Amino acid sequence: MRWYVVASLLTVLTSSQGILTTLSQSNGGYKYDYATVPFLAEVFKLLVSSVFLWREMQNSPPPKMTMDWKSVRLYPIPSIIYLIHNNVQFATLTYVDTSTYQIMGNLKIVTTGILFRLFLKRKLTNLQWMAIILLAVGTTTSQVKGCGEASCDSFFSSPIQGYLFGALSACLSALAGVYTEFLMKKNNDSLYWQNVQLYTFGSIFNMGRLLMDDFRSGFEEGPWWQRIFNGYNMTTWLVVLNLGTTGLLVSWLMKYADNIVKVYATSMAMLLTMVLSVILFNFKPTVQLFLGIIICMMSLHMYFAPPSTLVDLPLTVKPVSESVSEVPAERKTDS
Amino acid sequence: MRWYVVASLLTVLTSSQGILTTLSQSNGGYKYDYATVPFLAEVFKLLVSSVFLWREMQNSPPPKMTMDWKSVRLYPIPSIIYLIHNNVQFATLTYVDTSTYQIMGNLKIVTTGILFRLFLKRKLTNLQWMAIILLAVGTTTSQVKGCGEASCDSFFSSPIQGYLFGALSACLSALAGVYTEFLMKKNNDSLYWQNVQLYTFGSIFNMGRLLMDDFRSGFEEGPWWQRIFNGYNMTTWLVVLNLGTTGLLVSWLMKYADNIVKVYATSMAMLLTMVLSVILFNFKPTVQLFLGIIICMMSLHMYFAPPSTLVDLPLTVKPVSESVSEVPAERKTDS
Repeated sequence: MRWYVVASLLTVLTSSQGILTTLSQSNGGYKYDYATVPFLAEVFKLLVSSVFLWREMQNSPPPKMTMDWKSVRLYPIPSIIYLIHNNVQFATLTYVDTSTYQIMGNLKIVTTGILFRLFLKRKLTNLQWMAIILLAVGTTTSQVKGCGEASCDSFFSSPIQGYLFGALSACLSALAGVYTEFLMKKNNDSLYWQNVQLYTFGSIFNMGRLLMDDFRSGFEEGPWWQRIFNGYNMTTWLVVLNLGTTGLLVSWLMKYADNIVKVYATSMAMLLTMVLSVILFNFKPTVQLFLGIIICMMSLHMYFAPPSTLVDLPLTVKPVSESVSEVPAERKTDS
Repeated sequence: MRWYVVASLLTVLTSSQGILTTLSQSNGGYKYDYATVPFLAEVFKLLVSSVFLWREMQNSPPPKMTMDWKSVRLYPIPSIIYLIHNNVQFATLTYVDTSTYQIMGNLKIVTTGILFRLFLKRKLTNLQWMAIILLAVGTTTSQVKGCGEASCDSFFSSPIQGYLFGALSACLSALAGVYTEFLMKKNNDSLYWQNVQLYTFGSIFNMGRLLMDDFRSGFEEGPWWQRIFNGYNMTTWLVVLNLGTTGLLVSWLMKYADNIVKVYATSMAMLLTMVLSVILFNFKPTVQLFLGIIICMMSLHMYFAPPSTLVDLPLTVKPVSESVSEVPAERKTDS
C-alpha cells in the first residue's frame, strides 16, 4: 500500500472519530465511561495484530521477531510517555482555559518537526520547515474564536506556568510519536510483532488507568470490569472500532512513512471535522476556517510537492570544467 | 538605491500614514476636509518631481523626455481607473459592511499577481504564486474580528452583488497598479518627467473631485479654494507630506522594481500599523494578528528568497557533454 493512501484513510477515520464521539453522546453527555474506550481500542488493536502475526507465522519464511528483553523493554516507553503527557495536560488545564489549551496544542506540529530532526536525524529543507510552521499556523487560524463566541481575550492573559506546561505537553506528545517511529524502524521486525508488543503494554497501562480511577472514586460504582460496557450502544462500539483502526494505521505510517506524514493526516482530519460539522451539525462557517484550510493546503503542497514543480531549477548549476563556463552555450542543434 | 531599501521606507511611511491620520483627528473626527489631503499630496509630488526634473535638465546629457501626444495621453489613464475604482468602492459599500469590505480588499493582492502575469507577461514560479495567495490569506487573518467585537457573522451573508463589486474593485485597483508599471517601464524616459505627467493629471483629477463635492453640497461651505486649509494643523501637514512621499516611492518602485514589491511593502505596512496601534493606542493584541504576521513573513521569504536556499538543488542535473544542445544559453554578466 502506498503511504498516501494510508494517510488519506487515517485522515478520514480520524475525522469520523470526532463526529462519532459527538453522535455517541446522549442529551449532551456520555452515558458510558469514556476511559473504557481507549482501553478497548488497545485490546482491539492487540487482537487484530495477533491474528495478522499468527497468519504471518504460517508462511515461510516466518516473520522476523526479536524476542530478547533488551528489545522488548523499549515497547512500554511510548505508553509511559503518554502517561506523563496526560498528567502534564491536566496540569496545563489548571492554568489556561480550554480554548487557549486547544490553540497551544498546535505547537505539537512544530515540536514534532524539531524532535524528528534532532532524534531521528532527518534533514528537512528550509521550505519544509516553513511548511511545518504554516501547518501549525493554519490549524491555529481555523480555531480562532469568532466574534460573538463566549470566552474572550484569554490567549495572552494566562499565567506563565500555563504556557510552560503547554510547551512541555507539546514536547512530550512529539516525543512519544518520534520514539514510536524510532522503535518501529530500528530493525526489520514484523510490523505485527512490533504491534503486539506495543499494544500489550498499551492495554496494561490503560487497564491501570481504569483501576486508578476506581481507586480514586473508592469503588463507588464497582470495579471497572463489572461496568465496562455500561451505556454502550452501536455508536460507542463504532467509536472503539474507529479508534483502534486509526491506531493501526498510525503504526503502519510510523514504520513505512514517518511522523510528519502522520501530523499532516491528523491536521487535515481536524479541518475535515470542522467542515463536516458545518454540514452535519449546522455549525456556522467562519472566515478563519476558510483561511485555515487554504494555509494548510499550501503547507501540504510545500512539504510534499517535488521542488522542481515549485521553483525553476536551473538545468545545470555547475559546469564541469572552468573553461566551459566562459563559453556561452549557443550550439543549438535543433533547426 | 536598492529596491528593498525603497520598499522598506515605503513600508514605514505607509504605516505612519495610518497612525498620523488617526492622530490628525480631534475628538474622533476630522476638523479639515479629508478630500483636500490627496489633492495637496498630488501637488506636492508634482512640485518635487518638477524640481528634480529641472535639476536633471541642467546636466548633460539631458534627461530623455518623450513629449508627443501619443505618449502623453496615456498618463491620465491611471487617474481615470482610480476614479472608476472609487465609484465601484462606493457601490460595494452599499451591499457589504465595512469589515467584509476590508477583508475583500485583500483580494487585490491576488488580482495584482494575475494582471501582472497577464498584462506584463511576467512569469512567476508556483512557489511565488503560493506566496502571493498566502500574503492575501495572512493580511486577511490579521483582520479577522476577535470575539467580543461588534459586528458579527456578516462575511458569508452579504448579497452576491457585494462580492461581485468587491471583486471588480480588486481588479480595478490591480489594473491601476499594473498599468502604471507598464507606463513607467515602456521607455527609458526620465522618472521625473514621467512623474510630472502622472501628477499633473493626478492634480487635475483631484481638483475635479473637490469641485464635484462643492457642486454636490451646493457650495454651502464656499468653493474649495477658499476653505482648502481650514482646520489644518501640524499633523495634517505631516499627513499630506507623508502621502506625497509614499506616492513618490511607489512611482520609483513601479519603474525600478515592480507591483509585487509594492504589494508586499503595503501589506507589511498594514501589519506594522496594527502592531504600532497595540503599542501606541493600547489596542488589544489578538492571536489572529500574531498568526497573520507569521504567515506574511513566510510568504515574503517564499517569494523573495533565492530558491537554492529553500530547497535542495541537485548540483548537476545533466552531464555537460551529451546535452549541451538542450541547455539554454546561460548569460553570465558578472565576472
